[in-house]
Amino acid sequence: MAQARLLVRPEPESKRRLRLWLRLYAATSVIEREMRRFLRQHFATTLPRFDLMAALERAPDGLTMGELSRRLMVSGGNVTSVVAGLERDGSVCRRSPASDRRTSYVALTGQGRAAFQAMAREHEHWIDQLLADVAGEDVDLLTELLAELKHKAEAKAEAGRVR
Amino acid sequence: MAQARLLVRPEPESKRRLRLWLRLYAATSVIEREMRRFLRQHFATTLPRFDLMAALERAPDGLTMGELSRRLMVSGGNVTSVVAGLERDGSVCRRSPASDRRTSYVALTGQGRAAFQAMAREHEHWIDQLLADVAGEDVDLLTELLAELKHKAEAKAEAGRVR
Repeated sequence: MAQARLLVRPEPESKRRLRLWLRLYAATSVIEREMRRFLRQHFATTLPRFDLMAALERAPDGLTMGELSRRLMVSGGNVTSVVAGLERDGSVCRRSPASDRRTSYVALTGQGRAAFQAMAREHEHWIDQLLADVAGEDVDLLTELLAELKHKAEAKAEAGRVR
Repeated sequence: MAQARLLVRPEPESKRRLRLWLRLYAATSVIEREMRRFLRQHFATTLPRFDLMAALERAPDGLTMGELSRRLMVSGGNVTSVVAGLERDGSVCRRSPASDRRTSYVALTGQGRAAFQAMAREHEHWIDQLLADVAGEDVDLLTELLAELKHKAEAKAEAGRVR
């Protein structure tokens, strides 16, 4: 009897939110692990390099190191070493506008852009295969719910209400 | 007119799956970034340490380094350095069963378990606050959809159909 009562006791909201986070983290981790493998095997590259090139592809005028660090949500030190590696490969270059010689912008080179676009096409095809069994309506519903979740978590975090 | 036709052309499924992945990655990254900050500020610890302790808390008999690496989806080298740090703090210990002296298991010490449980309580409360604005029904729907997504992506990856 005591057990039956336990079973019908509604689960606290905090437990349900925790479980949501654990599921989110686990789902992302699985895809991330597979993607690291895919990028290593097919392009001999890493996820931080791919992410950095993706950010630069969306910013034709280049980004400062600080902007890159914020967009990629990684520490400045990591961005520096990834940029240095891509610079050695000739995929990115640094430049300072004539109007502000003290600010340096990182941008894709022509070669870097072509390489990224080739990877991005394969990457899109790869994700399409990996998620092929997720129904179209679930894809759209999840996309919408996740955008909302991100927005709400960011707002809470920014309001500093989360200690 | 050409533009109007472009607007009504249905978006390919592959683009929608790609967008889902980008949203998933972005939502997880935001929460992860905030969680790293929370763990650092409140417990002077890191996410890999927290994750490793969480895995050990669910395995009272301990786990081998290989099991830890698989469960945490990180490389063996990273697991080794995290375990070494936790060992120095007295949070975990290594032991070999009398029946198999060559296999070493990592387990939480009493002190490590108590420390983890205190962190886990705060962590649950923190996540509850961060996601407080996500409606209860969306929490449950997202949890279910993400479990399915993870399951389907894992099955595809394991079947080796994703190159």
